[in-house]
Amino acid sequence: MTAHPSPTTTLLRPRFAPFSIPLTGVVPPVCTPLTPEREVDVPSLIRLVDHLVDGGVDGLFVLGSTSEAAYLTDAQRRLVVETVTGHVAGRLPVLAGAIDMTTPRVLDHVRDVTAAGADAVVVTAPFYTRTHPVEIARHYRVIATRSPVPVFAYDLPVSVHTKLSAELVLELAADGVLAGLKDSSGDLGSFRSVVTGARSHPDITGFTLLTGSEVVVDSALALGADGAVPGLGNVDPVGYVRLFRLCRDGDWERARAEQERLCALFRMVDVGDAARMGGSSSALGAFKAALYLRGVIDCPATAEPQVPLSEGEVELVGKYLAGAGLL
Amino acid sequence: MTAHPSPTTTLLRPRFAPFSIPLTGVVPPVCTPLTPEREVDVPSLIRLVDHLVDGGVDGLFVLGSTSEAAYLTDAQRRLVVETVTGHVAGRLPVLAGAIDMTTPRVLDHVRDVTAAGADAVVVTAPFYTRTHPVEIARHYRVIATRSPVPVFAYDLPVSVHTKLSAELVLELAADGVLAGLKDSSGDLGSFRSVVTGARSHPDITGFTLLTGSEVVVDSALALGADGAVPGLGNVDPVGYVRLFRLCRDGDWERARAEQERLCALFRMVDVGDAARMGGSSSALGAFKAALYLRGVIDCPATAEPQVPLSEGEVELVGKYLAGAGLL
Amino acid sequence: MTAHPSPTTTLLRPRFAPFSIPLTGVVPPVCTPLTPEREVDVPSLIRLVDHLVDGGVDGLFVLGSTSEAAYLTDAQRRLVVETVTGHVAGRLPVLAGAIDMTTPRVLDHVRDVTAAGADAVVVTAPFYTRTHPVEIARHYRVIATRSPVPVFAYDLPVSVHTKLSAELVLELAADGVLAGLKDSSGDLGSFRSVVTGARSHPDITGFTLLTGSEVVVDSALALGADGAVPGLGNVDPVGYVRLFRLCRDGDWERARAEQERLCALFRMVDVGDAARMGGSSSALGAFKAALYLRGVIDCPATAEPQVPLSEGEVELVGKYLAGAGLL
Amino acid sequence: MTAHPSPTTTLLRPRFAPFSIPLTGVVPPVCTPLTPEREVDVPSLIRLVDHLVDGGVDGLFVLGSTSEAAYLTDAQRRLVVETVTGHVAGRLPVLAGAIDMTTPRVLDHVRDVTAAGADAVVVTAPFYTRTHPVEIARHYRVIATRSPVPVFAYDLPVSVHTKLSAELVLELAADGVLAGLKDSSGDLGSFRSVVTGARSHPDITGFTLLTGSEVVVDSALALGADGAVPGLGNVDPVGYVRLFRLCRDGDWERARAEQERLCALFRMVDVGDAARMGGSSSALGAFKAALYLRGVIDCPATAEPQVPLSEGEVELVGKYLAGAGLL
Repeated sequence: MTAHPSPTTTLLRPRFAPFSIPLTGVVPPVCTPLTPEREVDVPSLIRLVDHLVDGGVDGLFVLGSTSEAAYLTDAQRRLVVETVTGHVAGRLPVLAGAIDMTTPRVLDHVRDVTAAGADAVVVTAPFYTRTHPVEIARHYRVIATRSPVPVFAYDLPVSVHTKLSAELVLELAADGVLAGLKDSSGDLGSFRSVVTGARSHPDITGFTLLTGSEVVVDSALALGADGAVPGLGNVDPVGYVRLFRLCRDGDWERARAEQERLCALFRMVDVGDAARMGGSSSALGAFKAALYLRGVIDCPATAEPQVPLSEGEVELVGKYLAGAGLL
Repeated sequence: MTAHPSPTTTLLRPRFAPFSIPLTGVVPPVCTPLTPEREVDVPSLIRLVDHLVDGGVDGLFVLGSTSEAAYLTDAQRRLVVETVTGHVAGRLPVLAGAIDMTTPRVLDHVRDVTAAGADAVVVTAPFYTRTHPVEIARHYRVIATRSPVPVFAYDLPVSVHTKLSAELVLELAADGVLAGLKDSSGDLGSFRSVVTGARSHPDITGFTLLTGSEVVVDSALALGADGAVPGLGNVDPVGYVRLFRLCRDGDWERARAEQERLCALFRMVDVGDAARMGGSSSALGAFKAALYLRGVIDCPATAEPQVPLSEGEVELVGKYLAGAGLL
Repeated sequence: MTAHPSPTTTLLRPRFAPFSIPLTGVVPPVCTPLTPEREVDVPSLIRLVDHLVDGGVDGLFVLGSTSEAAYLTDAQRRLVVETVTGHVAGRLPVLAGAIDMTTPRVLDHVRDVTAAGADAVVVTAPFYTRTHPVEIARHYRVIATRSPVPVFAYDLPVSVHTKLSAELVLELAADGVLAGLKDSSGDLGSFRSVVTGARSHPDITGFTLLTGSEVVVDSALALGADGAVPGLGNVDPVGYVRLFRLCRDGDWERARAEQERLCALFRMVDVGDAARMGGSSSALGAFKAALYLRGVIDCPATAEPQVPLSEGEVELVGKYLAGAGLL
Repeated sequence: MTAHPSPTTTLLRPRFAPFSIPLTGVVPPVCTPLTPEREVDVPSLIRLVDHLVDGGVDGLFVLGSTSEAAYLTDAQRRLVVETVTGHVAGRLPVLAGAIDMTTPRVLDHVRDVTAAGADAVVVTAPFYTRTHPVEIARHYRVIATRSPVPVFAYDLPVSVHTKLSAELVLELAADGVLAGLKDSSGDLGSFRSVVTGARSHPDITGFTLLTGSEVVVDSALALGADGAVPGLGNVDPVGYVRLFRLCRDGDWERARAEQERLCALFRMVDVGDAARMGGSSSALGAFKAALYLRGVIDCPATAEPQVPLSEGEVELVGKYLAGAGLL
């Protein structure tokens, strides 16, 4: 009669996933275009999805950090997932963040995003509250038991203030709780421990390993990652797809050159004046300004309380685009 | 035609508050009793409210950290506020947390908790996302403009990972954005800066200054705080009310003795084995175990993914209660 | 034949201290006046000591944070201790910081400062290196065994990046390892746990409990501290001595007024432009500028690589002095 | 007449370095063998140097974290540098850490280690004290002006609690202040910014870029690093030299296999029981146990207050060695 099954319940493994396992390639975290009134701009979002699909990406990740999931209301989150899954119509897998503080709140988002058509959910450790490795494991076990779709762990210490250990991820992968990992920790050594651990573990198959980095995608692929979830992929999906293919083909020299071009473009995230705004305002403001300048979206607004870029800062974004051959 | 008014809009000041200004005394953050299935246990919640009101408290704070707000679903949050405001029926002011990551999501909670009858909302700085003092100010200004009830700032760096500066709080108080502060920073020196700054500022009147500490309530009141929001007040409301009155009457010697008795009782928050659970599981588990042992609530369960206390740990809670003369 | 005695060696307890136990009153951390060439300015240091002794202080703490111990070479550190102990000549106890990263390096400083006449040493937990409570205990046990004078623990998480737990301090106090605590953690609740724990522990006698705060000295004394080590005491020793006496006499209302006057004066620590310098440059620069303006020291220079205050910032310090009646 | 030259003094550039510029290859941070009495074990240190030189390394780094510099007294530090430079006798460059809290104290170490024959010094940002980018720049400028040998920046946020920004490192490199960077930040993306920035900067030539990682050496070399400073290189210098050569030759597939073998070996750093010791005790204890088991050093003791590995933990180290083919 318990509503929450015991977190030690054995899972049927492998859970069916509506996409090839593991997921490989470029899976950009999709920006959420907003109107000047800070409502979801559905036509712009659809154009952005087309821009990404036309760019050759292999999947889409909605409601992640780059999507401003932390800023979107529940109604806006649902609208985003419905819009994207409806427009994609099964051509690509759509992963959706279920970003909230703890298990019960995450479960509500899992219900919402899967009802809206998400093919997998991406979930962080608990945040805001004080937590513990035992509780993090319990969190993922409860969620996996109740999610109708595969669960990816989202390692984002800058937001969550906890790092998922390689040991914990591998334990949960081996038990069939997790289907994959999006690593945005910035710690490539720790990510490598998961990659090599997963490859050599007898009980782990089809586990998807994605880096959330924009700037060491070649390195991550070289050491065995399956793909990348680069926020900058909104701005230049073609570049990241090209980078992925060069790496897949083992052409490391040209891959490095392409990665360096993208690194130079990525410097746009620092255009915002640090005396006047935080890192999110600057980075997401720059991505959206770039999409606006490239004609993909109608308005570069970011959600409240982020501070808008100044005109001069937007011009600087334009210069980065020009420098990368994108304007 | 903007949905979000400009954050610089002047507020009518002072905003009407349905309680005396400033709010003084003991305003416990109300635990949220759960059933074994982790649903809100309404009868237990009502008994807990009676236990607090009968203990002589001066207001109630629902949906704060001690209430497990981070773990409650939106439906559960609404049920809690409706239950408490309905049962209190105006006898005491009811403050409600509107705890979420950013402005738009907080605004949804403000709408919900005020629809459910809350007399004021308690709001943290943005979290999970990277932020900045300019953005924090913008956040509170937007929320204050759109909230039908007074807004209290909630300074909780252990969760939010940002400390509200005294300077920022005073600026927002002077502009009529904030009606009060709940300080759970543990930094009494910084809190004192706000207290003395608010007392001497020509544009600040009726600003409510509450400490979130359990263990230096006498100190906070001695330096000018209006009241306290002690989680342990769930377990021993009579003790905190007695402490407040002793301080109000300037009987510092007896106040110190009462405070020390409560400090000894507060040690229950560490009963949980740190190898097996985090600080939230231990502290909230202890408060709920104490309420269960005192016969106030029917079940000591905490929300997922918190780890339950063992039988031995619950016994230890009982010993603390006995030591404080509460069993 | 081991050079380091076993850290579990039992100590003879209580260790003889060349001052009354516990040490009570105001024990300012003595600034280290420097010449324009950044050498120790011995005549100014002697004048500063006279200024403090004449102000009525009860002891002196050299080579703490306010003394710029982190910036002084070993030769400078020795010169400071010799100068101060030589000039004081036993009239007051002189405590000296032995600030370094780990046990062996701290032991060298203990040897140096005690050879130079220090009556007690003040020691932090290990820093720079990763540490652990077991190692912190081991650190203090080894040092206490080898120190010819009593050892005080220095809790300064902002520098050490570890907080000493009340439990650990009390364990070491009960075992005679520690003779006292200087608490600069800013966490009055935790300090209270040590104070009340020490008062009630059968094996702890004569343990000296000093707060390092400038702004909640009245609170700390009210809850049982023996004294204070306020950096601002360099600037206004008379004020802190007056505050201590008011607290000792239980005149809390006048104590609070005096404390608030000192809090207003303390705001000088923020005069430095945060875009151009760190908190140490600003706070220590302000203390030294104040001593210079009051005619106590000849030069307000701080050690490299701290950034000097601008002329306008020094003027602002003067305004704080004037506001507090000190110019 | 100022003892400290102005930090803006122009440097003669490039400073002469007694080794080829940039320095490339494997430059292990040399462990400091200790006797049971915790004195420097000179014969073991000489055997360790031979073990490394025979393994084919390209330089030696003494007095870094792996050398327990934070635990060595000044006399021990001097003895280490003299022993190593004397034994190496110019066959390889010897870099020495000058690890201390601030500029004046670092300068004393610079004097000592260069008197003892070090070919370059490796210096962190200020620590223990609160700092600021302006002060960090000033720190390096003063040190470079007064150091007779080239200065490398040591980026070690886990110890220093500040991250050196790519922008700051490049500014100091362009001004001839820094001769190189040892990056132990774990943040490969940031390191890449320095690498690509330095390669493309018109004013930067011969800047040495070394990764301090053990586990992504192949990645760092692939993106343009000059070499590596792996602590684990004490245990298996041959492996790291082989890895470097494979990378230099562009044999990325075999490089990856060798790197993965070394990653598996590196797991020895976690043998220590986290309930009983910190990360330094565990990792340095494991390296020394491995060197002891391999017959290179006579005693695996680590400095106080580190906790020794248990017998079982040492056995586990042996298993890692056996697994890597080193026993």
